[in-house]
Amino acid sequence: SETLKFAVLPGDGIGPEVMEVALEVLSAATKPEALDLDFATADVGGIAIDNHGEALPESTLSVCRGVDAILFGSVGGPKWENLPPKEQPERAALLPLRKEFSLFANIRPGLLFPELVDASPLKTNRIPDGIDIVCIRELTGGIYFGQPKSTRTLDDGQKEAIDTMVYKTSEIERIAEVAAIAAYGRGKRVCSVDKANVLETSVLWRQTVTDYFKKNHPEIELSHMYVDNAAMQLARDPNQFDVLFTENMFGDILSDEMGVICGSLGMMSSASLGTGQNRFGKPFGLYEPAGGTAPDIAGKGIANPCAQILSAAMMLRYSFGYDAIADRIGNAVKKTVQDGIRTGDIAFGKSSIGTREMAKAIIERL
Amino acid sequence: SETLKFAVLPGDGIGPEVMEVALEVLSAATKPEALDLDFATADVGGIAIDNHGEALPESTLSVCRGVDAILFGSVGGPKWENLPPKEQPERAALLPLRKEFSLFANIRPGLLFPELVDASPLKTNRIPDGIDIVCIRELTGGIYFGQPKSTRTLDDGQKEAIDTMVYKTSEIERIAEVAAIAAYGRGKRVCSVDKANVLETSVLWRQTVTDYFKKNHPEIELSHMYVDNAAMQLARDPNQFDVLFTENMFGDILSDEMGVICGSLGMMSSASLGTGQNRFGKPFGLYEPAGGTAPDIAGKGIANPCAQILSAAMMLRYSFGYDAIADRIGNAVKKTVQDGIRTGDIAFGKSSIGTREMAKAIIERL
Ligand SMILES: CC(C)[C@H](C(=O)O)[C@@H](O)C(=O)O
Ligand SMILES: CC(C)[C@H](C(=O)O)[C@@H](O)C(=O)O
Repeated sequence: SETLKFAVLPGDGIGPEVMEVALEVLSAATKPEALDLDFATADVGGIAIDNHGEALPESTLSVCRGVDAILFGSVGGPKWENLPPKEQPERAALLPLRKEFSLFANIRPGLLFPELVDASPLKTNRIPDGIDIVCIRELTGGIYFGQPKSTRTLDDGQKEAIDTMVYKTSEIERIAEVAAIAAYGRGKRVCSVDKANVLETSVLWRQTVTDYFKKNHPEIELSHMYVDNAAMQLARDPNQFDVLFTENMFGDILSDEMGVICGSLGMMSSASLGTGQNRFGKPFGLYEPAGGTAPDIAGKGIANPCAQILSAAMMLRYSFGYDAIADRIGNAVKKTVQDGIRTGDIAFGKSSIGTREMAKAIIERL
Repeated sequence: SETLKFAVLPGDGIGPEVMEVALEVLSAATKPEALDLDFATADVGGIAIDNHGEALPESTLSVCRGVDAILFGSVGGPKWENLPPKEQPERAALLPLRKEFSLFANIRPGLLFPELVDASPLKTNRIPDGIDIVCIRELTGGIYFGQPKSTRTLDDGQKEAIDTMVYKTSEIERIAEVAAIAAYGRGKRVCSVDKANVLETSVLWRQTVTDYFKKNHPEIELSHMYVDNAAMQLARDPNQFDVLFTENMFGDILSDEMGVICGSLGMMSSASLGTGQNRFGKPFGLYEPAGGTAPDIAGKGIANPCAQILSAAMMLRYSFGYDAIADRIGNAVKKTVQDGIRTGDIAFGKSSIGTREMAKAIIERL
């Protein structure tokens, strides 16, 4: 029997409670395949600030270094809201993790089941069959880490701050490859989003992506769109996209817009993949729900665990190569929702159940 | 009698036809006040490329230098779509105009009349009374013009491109003042959008805006939001905002998202104000519809002229100080729509009229 080694970082708010049941689902789904789960839990985010004085303590990092993937909950909350922006739990945990493990590829399914169209802010006739797109975001380049990034005082006493957006060919090509692979498994269409009418980095992005697809993936239909237009088109008609593909900062904005348009953030998972190979010959990855810590309902046992469960399924797929089990979990979640079994966030006033019951219903449908 | 001197740059596509009737409305609205209109028309955009070899010829610039405001149509179209991004009509016309006239403040009303909620992609119960917000975007700073902005070949043959996002205190303060003024005329709430957890420029932005409002506008309620969250909140519940206020690149994305959420782009106007004073003691400004050239309906006489008419009203208000006439035009447009008189884009399958008839109906209601 094979052993899956991963780190579990539940974080704050609803993180621990959805993580607990996600691990139960993962365990139920892998047991028939004789897979052992070997996970180590560590503090991250606000709870890590409280217990260790920093959002990503060295002890947590070292747990992560010894495994093949990270299953991440969510971090942050009112308690740490007044910290300076750069010390806030989410930022202080995620950016160093991305850097440490070269997590360059963020994959976010924009999936809204037809049964849940009421959850979307969009008019139902715009998305009669729900939404099914995916957003691929470059995650370690661009303006997030580019140097120089600094503030200075000018001669006249004013302050001036600068950030640097930087991309080089190889960084663009490796994320283009991720977008292409995603497209093969879907509608074979990639829409690359940039601002090539204003940015040098976008001119290079567009040219590199065009050349790369022409050379390596001529069977994929590639189009280009400016980021301002993409923000419009997502809100107008999200299903015009198949794979939405963009750089770090634009991806931050567009993937969140996509998330809200897909209705409940409680259903949205994500994967952030690294550059190297783990012991399974797959990328090391960090898997996390797209939503936040939902402090208002934390501890009440009513949070939707689907995003965490689907993130665990993404981990099986991308970091361990168990696509069939990942599919089985995805289908069980879908079946549960189709059967009308709902947590409060997707119940639309109808009767709803709690986190554990939801997980139990999913396990029954595996 | 006073003379209003302005440049008229109709541009491409529906630009000329909506401009023509907007000038008729302007003329009808100003005549009772004994105001003379003295305008000079010049080529811009695609038609200028065709006639003069460039999107913003020196002859057009020199017309603009002699006046107090520019009434702009819209530019671009399929004919020029295959030009390199930076030579495309919109970009090649607008960026130099912004730079030449220091048009640092972009004001975009996000207005959806309750009668037109069907035009929005958002579920009607999210915006039962329509939408009424405004977006203030910094327009000459940030990553649009920051230096260095260049591409080079690395030793290993790869290319590397960089863009620089830069802001200094005074640039932030002057646009904060515009946001404050907008807020006084409305709900006295400003939400400043940044990415202070990642960007140095945003840390400076947030600090400068906070200090500036505390010192100069303590009666305005100031809040801060990250740009990714703002992209979500706009699509979820746009009316939570009163004045949305942000830097150049974020404003490009968010104002377009706001535009589409407000339904028909045919209703959306904008003002871009300069730093100095014109002969009316007001800022020089460029006034343009937020939508595009709509090539599919150009020349058919069915385009919605409201955006252009409302842009002309903004010109009266901001560059000439005739607020009362601007209000009268705004009310006439509103009344026309309330009376069920509609162009095709806002008719929802009901009967619709053409551009000239729409303008005539508005003139009758002045
Ligand atoms: C917390 C923040 C730094 C982060 C980002 O901007 O990437 C978050 O918004 C995200 O999208 O994961
Ligand atoms: C054409 C382009 C350069 C411009 C911008 O990005 O500012 C446009 O999108 C706008 O918003 O006016």
